[in-house]
This record gives sequence, C-alpha cells and structure tokens, in this order.
Amino acid sequence: MVKQFEKKHLTKKSENFSEWYQEVILKAGLADYAPVKGCMVIRPYGYAIWENIRNYLDGLIKSSGVTNAYFPLFIPEHLLKKEKEHVAGFSPELAVVTIGGGEELKEKLVIRPTSETIMYAMYAKWIQSYRDLPILINQWNNVVRWEKRTYLFLRTTEFLWQEGHTVHATHQEAVKMVMEALNHYINLYQNYLAMFGYAGVKSQLEKFAGAEDSFTYEILTPEGKTLQAATSHDLGQKFSKVFNIRFLDKDKKLKMPYQTSWGLSTRSIGGLIMVHGDDNGLVLPPKIAPIQLVIMPVFTKNSEKNKKLKEMAKKLKEELKDIHVWIDEREEETFGYKINDWELKGVPLRLELGEKEIKEGAFTLARRDNFEKNKVKHQNLEASVNQLLNEIQNNLFEKSKKFTLEHTYEAHSYEEFKRIMKNNRGVIKAYWCENQNCEAKIKAETKATVRCLPLSEVNKKDNQKCVYCGQKAHRAWLFGQAY
Amino acid sequence: MVKQFEKKHLTKKSENFSEWYQEVILKAGLADYAPVKGCMVIRPYGYAIWENIRNYLDGLIKSSGVTNAYFPLFIPEHLLKKEKEHVAGFSPELAVVTIGGGEELKEKLVIRPTSETIMYAMYAKWIQSYRDLPILINQWNNVVRWEKRTYLFLRTTEFLWQEGHTVHATHQEAVKMVMEALNHYINLYQNYLAMFGYAGVKSQLEKFAGAEDSFTYEILTPEGKTLQAATSHDLGQKFSKVFNIRFLDKDKKLKMPYQTSWGLSTRSIGGLIMVHGDDNGLVLPPKIAPIQLVIMPVFTKNSEKNKKLKEMAKKLKEELKDIHVWIDEREEETFGYKINDWELKGVPLRLELGEKEIKEGAFTLARRDNFEKNKVKHQNLEASVNQLLNEIQNNLFEKSKKFTLEHTYEAHSYEEFKRIMKNNRGVIKAYWCENQNCEAKIKAETKATVRCLPLSEVNKKDNQKCVYCGQKAHRAWLFGQAY
Repeated sequence: MVKQFEKKHLTKKSENFSEWYQEVILKAGLADYAPVKGCMVIRPYGYAIWENIRNYLDGLIKSSGVTNAYFPLFIPEHLLKKEKEHVAGFSPELAVVTIGGGEELKEKLVIRPTSETIMYAMYAKWIQSYRDLPILINQWNNVVRWEKRTYLFLRTTEFLWQEGHTVHATHQEAVKMVMEALNHYINLYQNYLAMFGYAGVKSQLEKFAGAEDSFTYEILTPEGKTLQAATSHDLGQKFSKVFNIRFLDKDKKLKMPYQTSWGLSTRSIGGLIMVHGDDNGLVLPPKIAPIQLVIMPVFTKNSEKNKKLKEMAKKLKEELKDIHVWIDEREEETFGYKINDWELKGVPLRLELGEKEIKEGAFTLARRDNFEKNKVKHQNLEASVNQLLNEIQNNLFEKSKKFTLEHTYEAHSYEEFKRIMKNNRGVIKAYWCENQNCEAKIKAETKATVRCLPLSEVNKKDNQKCVYCGQKAHRAWLFGQAY
Repeated sequence: MVKQFEKKHLTKKSENFSEWYQEVILKAGLADYAPVKGCMVIRPYGYAIWENIRNYLDGLIKSSGVTNAYFPLFIPEHLLKKEKEHVAGFSPELAVVTIGGGEELKEKLVIRPTSETIMYAMYAKWIQSYRDLPILINQWNNVVRWEKRTYLFLRTTEFLWQEGHTVHATHQEAVKMVMEALNHYINLYQNYLAMFGYAGVKSQLEKFAGAEDSFTYEILTPEGKTLQAATSHDLGQKFSKVFNIRFLDKDKKLKMPYQTSWGLSTRSIGGLIMVHGDDNGLVLPPKIAPIQLVIMPVFTKNSEKNKKLKEMAKKLKEELKDIHVWIDEREEETFGYKINDWELKGVPLRLELGEKEIKEGAFTLARRDNFEKNKVKHQNLEASVNQLLNEIQNNLFEKSKKFTLEHTYEAHSYEEFKRIMKNNRGVIKAYWCENQNCEAKIKAETKATVRCLPLSEVNKKDNQKCVYCGQKAHRAWLFGQAY
C-alpha cells in the first residue's frame, strides 16, 4: 500500500486551505485526477478509508433489518420523467447514453443520478399486499451527476455512495425509518469519524427533489463553510402516486404506501480530510485509519543490526494483532523523510524502534494529533497503544465539537448576520419566518443558505422575529455558506 | 428477507432446463428482469449470495497483497482505442455517452466494458522507478457490455465483478500473479461454491482481447454446456507498450513492465444455480447460503402454544449463534407450502419444531441436498448441525465432480467427436494440432469450441494426431459448447 513519494512540500492549511486540501489528497495517495473530465481515481489508501466507512455503516443499516440489493445503472428516460420535481431537480446534471452495441438507441438511457425511479418501477411490481411491506432495501453503487466545477471527493461527476429505499404501510413507520437512518449517519460521524455536526430538517427550498421533508447532518469545515454530509428523506406518497405503487391492506382497502430514501457518499471522506487535517497533512481518527500504528525501525549502516530491528518490529506487530500495524522497512530513505511521510498520511501513532529502545525495553509512541511523545514499557505496550488510540479518537471529536461551537454565532439582526458572514464565517443561528422570499434574498445578498432546523429547535416559540424581514418567526434555523 | 410468494409451480429441471433456470431465479427471489433491455435487478436473496462470494474472494485477493481501489466508469474513446486487439474485441458491445449536462460531448465516453485502458493510463503516470513496482490493484465494480440476447446472471448488459490489474518488473513475477489469481478462483469454486471444473489455458482464438495468454476455470453445466467461470490473463507487455508505461530499473535502464488482469463476475451465481439445483429449486452449498438452517415451528390453532413454539425457536437460534438461522414465523401459510418455499430457496437444513419435538427433546433435521431426515437430540444439536452442513458441502462438491468426470469424453476420431457432441454433450478431450483453421472448422461443424488446455496437459507428448486434420498434435485439449 505504501509507495515511494517524491519529496513533499505541502502548502499550509492555515495559509491556503483549498490548495492544501488538494495537495494532501494527491500527496497522501488518497486519490488522483482521472483522464475524464470531472472524475477522480480513488487510490488504495483512500479506498481503504471508504471500505472502513462502508463496513461500519453497512452493519448499522443491516441492524435496521435493511438488506442490500443491486439495481441497473441505466434509467430509461420515461421513468425518470415520472416525478416532476425529481426530474426538474436532476435534469441539468444528467449523462445520457444514446448509442448501444453500435446502434442509435430508440429510447435514451440516463446514467442514474440516484435510483428512486428505477427502483420504484420494480417496487410497483413487487408490492401487492400489506404482507409485502415493509420493503427495506439499500444499495452500494456509483452514480453520475454532471458537474461543471469539480472538487476532489466533495463534488465529482461520478461518485460512490449507498442509497437506502424503503416502503411502509403507514407514514408513522416511514418517519421512524427516516430518523433511524439519520441516527445511523450521526452515529457514523460522531463515534467513528469523530466529526461533530448539526442534525436537522432542510428548508423546503433546500430539500431533495421529490421529498416531502429532508433531514441532514451538516458539518462545519475549517474555512467556515458547511457541508451536507448525509441526508435522509421522507418521500411521503409522492413517488408511490406516480409509480402507481398500491397495496391491499388488512382492511381490504387499496392504499398508497409511504416511502423513504437516504444516502451517504464518498463526499464524507472530503469532510474527514478537511475537519481533522493540519499543516503536516492528514490526521485520521484511529477507528477509520487503514494503518493505526506505524513501526519505524531506526536503521543504521550495519545490516546485521538492521535485520534484528526488522525481526523485533515483526514481533511487536504480532503482539499488537488487533491493531492495524505497518512496518516501514525502507532503508534508503532518511528517518526525517519517513516521519514526514507518515504524518502526511495521518497515521495516528508512530513507534520508533532503535537499538536503544530494545536494550531499555521501552518504546516511544508519537501521537499524530498533538505530536506528544509517550515512553512506554514493552510489557505495557498493547494496553498503552489501545489507550492512546482511544484518547486520540476522543480528542479529535472534542476538537471538532469545540471548533464548531466556537464558530456558531447567533445573529439577532440582519446587520449582525451580514457582519458575521463577512468577517467570521461559520454557522449562524437566526430566527427566520420560513418564507422562501427571505431565504432567497439572504442567499443572494450573503451567500448563506438555510442549512437546517436543528432537531432541538423544532418546537415553536413565541415573540420572535425573522432576522431578515422582521415578521413573526417561530424557530431558530442554522445558516451557512454551502459547498 | 423472506416475502410472501404466490403458489409456485416449478418447471422440472430435467424436462426443460432453460425454463427451469429462469423460473428458479424469479421464484426464489434471486433476481428479476429490469425495465431496461438486457439488464437485471439482483434482489436481496441473490445479492446476499454475491456478498458472500465477494467477502470470501476479497480475503483471498488481499492475502496476495492486492489492495482495492476505484477507477472511473467512463473511458474516453481515444484511450479505449490505444490497444488494437482490445478495442476490436469490445467495439461491438459498447454503450456510449454522447450527452453530458445537457450538451453534446466533444469526445464520446464509453461505459467501461472492462477497465484496462482507463487504469493503465493512470499506471503510466504513477510508475517511474522499480520502487513503484509491483502495482497490485483490484476493484469491485459494474461493467457494461451490450448484449443482443441476454440470460439472467449468465449474460446481462450490465454486470458486477471484480477486476484485478497488476504491474510487475519481470515476466516471471507477472506469471506468478496470473497463477495466484487463478488459484484463488479454483479455491473459491471448489472449497466454497462446491463446483468442480477444469483449470487451463485458453487457445489463441479464445483468449482475452489484448492478452498474451488467458487462463480459465471451466464448469460443465447439467445441459452439457461449458461455462467460463473466471479468467486470469497474462498481458505481457502489450498494454505497457501502447500506454507508454516505463520504469527505471535498478540497473539504470528504462524498461517496459509486465501486466496481468483477472476477473470473476456475478455470472458465477448463474453457474451455481445450474450446477446444484434440482427439480424442487435451488440447492445452496452451506458455505455460500445466506440462510443455512431454517427453523419451522409447526403451528396449530392454539395461539398460546404457538407463542411457546416461537420462543423455543428463538432459543434454538441463540444456541446456534455461529450459523445463519432463519425462523419461519408465518402462521397463515400451510406447512407444505412453506416446505416447498424453503426447498425452492435452497436452504441446506430444515429443522421442524412441534410440541412433540419439544417433549422428546429431539428434533428432525431435513437435508436439502438428498432429502434425508436426521433425528437429533437437543444436547447434540449444534454439533450435528455443523456436521451435517459439512457433509452437505462435501456431498455437493463430490456430486459436481462425479457428474463432470462422467460427462468428460475422450474423442479419438472426428467421427467420435461429432457423435459425442450430437448425443451425449459434455466436455470432450481430444488431441489438436493447435492450428486455428481446425479450431474454426470444428466450431462451425459441431458448435464445440476449444475450452482450455488443462494445466495437467501442458507438457508435450509425441506420436499423437489432431482429431480434426490428422496432423501431428502434442497436447489433449478440452472442447465443449460454450454459453
């Protein structure tokens, strides 16, 4: 997995965030630009992170009784057009196949931008009775949305994701599923990726094309923008109506079921890089790190001694069998170069192993998150490593939480709102009348969009005014500039 | 996962194989026809089989040091055209995107039929020195080959697979990788899917478009056709030449590396269904079965007693925690209907649980493969289940091996060859001069193609004659009618 790198000069995160972001991805070997406009190659180190995310989330999804399946890449044009808001939302970004097997196709095939339409055409066929419900299906696949301006991981023409699509007899059950999926995403982000964020409801303008309501997890990035990190949609009966999905209920009446869809993509890796990284490169939370600890033997010119160091490294690796350990056996590179390399790759712990350490029976463990060094006795190694990995995981989450809370501002007037957007950047909490007109004007004038109504704020309050128009407002929403 | 089914009449495998095959897939809920020509939907029960195959094979692949990555779905036309044999092989079956984001594209984008060209354009960028080698990358993805006549799992326009693509400094290393991949496939088929087959080298006419040599695992199906079940290719320097992949070797000379590619697809599930199934439906080898044992409580009209049966079923499921157990809680269906249903779905073991069984402290375990019933005491349940699952796994492999060997014929003359193809069907072992002219004529006259030269037959022998032309022949090849 680890290859040679050219000497790496890295732009400072604090000096040019956007440059830093792209350089980290390329230099740490997470991804590369593909020879197709707007597409990227996810390299092994980046894909190993995606595999970890997938394995963890897949377990959560299956714990809800949802099973995986696979639906076609191609959507016949007539199916996509069935739900009007849906097709209107996706039309500008479609890739279309017009030639197949050397011949012009009679009906154009759209590459799925999302799979509602192709899946629900099948659901209509499979569902007849209440006994066929609920349908609880998820798929891990690739989707295509033609993007004018692309950004590695965050916005690429093709990306990988999971999309869950369920059908229920009652709206209550569907809402329960929507919230369960949202909670899985919160679990993944908070407990696994160590990323604090705000969970809430989208505004009607920002919701998914075709949904009744969309729920979201929003992350604040170091440059003060907000990233929609996962969404879960209550589709109501909008799709079951147009796809003619009907079921004979226990009371012998023919009814329209309620649907949900929810997804999380490789975009999550973009957020992960942004939130935790520092001037030296990636910083990976231990739970997601493909390599959790790297053993670096301190090689000398004595090949006999080097051999012994390698043997000891292997022995330590075996002792730490529940931890993902990598041994850096490169003798031709300087120690300093290799340290830079592992810092760039964000490996949580580094163990330096020289003759001195073996004699002393104690090793130095260097933390990636705060650069602290810990001297640890051999007999305590496994326990210490586990403890340090836990501490790093917790520290990264606390840092992310602290940063987000410190950059969440309350705006009591539109002047204040504009000042924050101009000077501080971050998440702005403000009362809003929920009128789309105010929403549109705020966006046009400040670039801030409504990110969500946090779940904690859904209850109506009295005597509050819209930050823009001054009319009655009942809830404090979160605003921010989106990616 | 288990849904209601309409009463299922199943065509007999022995009477109409092709009808049987399609009905089993639809009625067992493995897959369904999609509303896109030539495409299929893999339903949860079928996809669970694919997940099992993927997990097992992924472990084998990773044990070879190969890591997963992801490359784009789209291949710009100019890249695909670089290797002449390759593009000639795939041209008739391409799907082409000509519109993106509402605009006609300047360069057409081909949906990958396989990823050699897009991957090797990146490899050329990543490889400079011997230190960058070997490159060992695999990806699990979807590919598209426009098919005129499609057949569920065996030949669909879009299918899922894994494709491994490696680059090595020497031909020897590349060949080692080709054989290692082939061995992983043999391992998967024999130890996991319980499917006997022939591993060997393809003829020059039948090899992969762009390979120096292709290796294959060929399965004999009950209707006497042979199925190419996985392939591993020695690409030599063909692609490194046209993609300009070069590395500076230790001796300071610029060299062309050697490449391999190898793949296994959802087609394997088609073979699995065909080889093991019987008149009652699917028969799944225990190692691949998503449900290994189904507990069927014998419900009565006494709901109190039924509740107790369900509790006992749950207790047994907990005791069998290392086994995939499903409890059939459907009270509204007859016992006979449910037995048919589980036989159709190929679940290896069925445990019947009534009041009598609880009183006796003994259960009946019914085997799906040979319909034998075994009475087992409660305290021996776990051990007996494990033993029976092992026996079923072995029995299915032995049956598959026996069938294949019994239907492998030696043809000493072309008359005999034609007679076997006409009357017996199966695999024919015959000496062949390795001249493409004979190969083409045999195919035109009998439909039999060269399937492979078995690995055991690669050494040249003297004094043998080609079954077609009578000229000198050195090796006995396997022939058969392909899917």
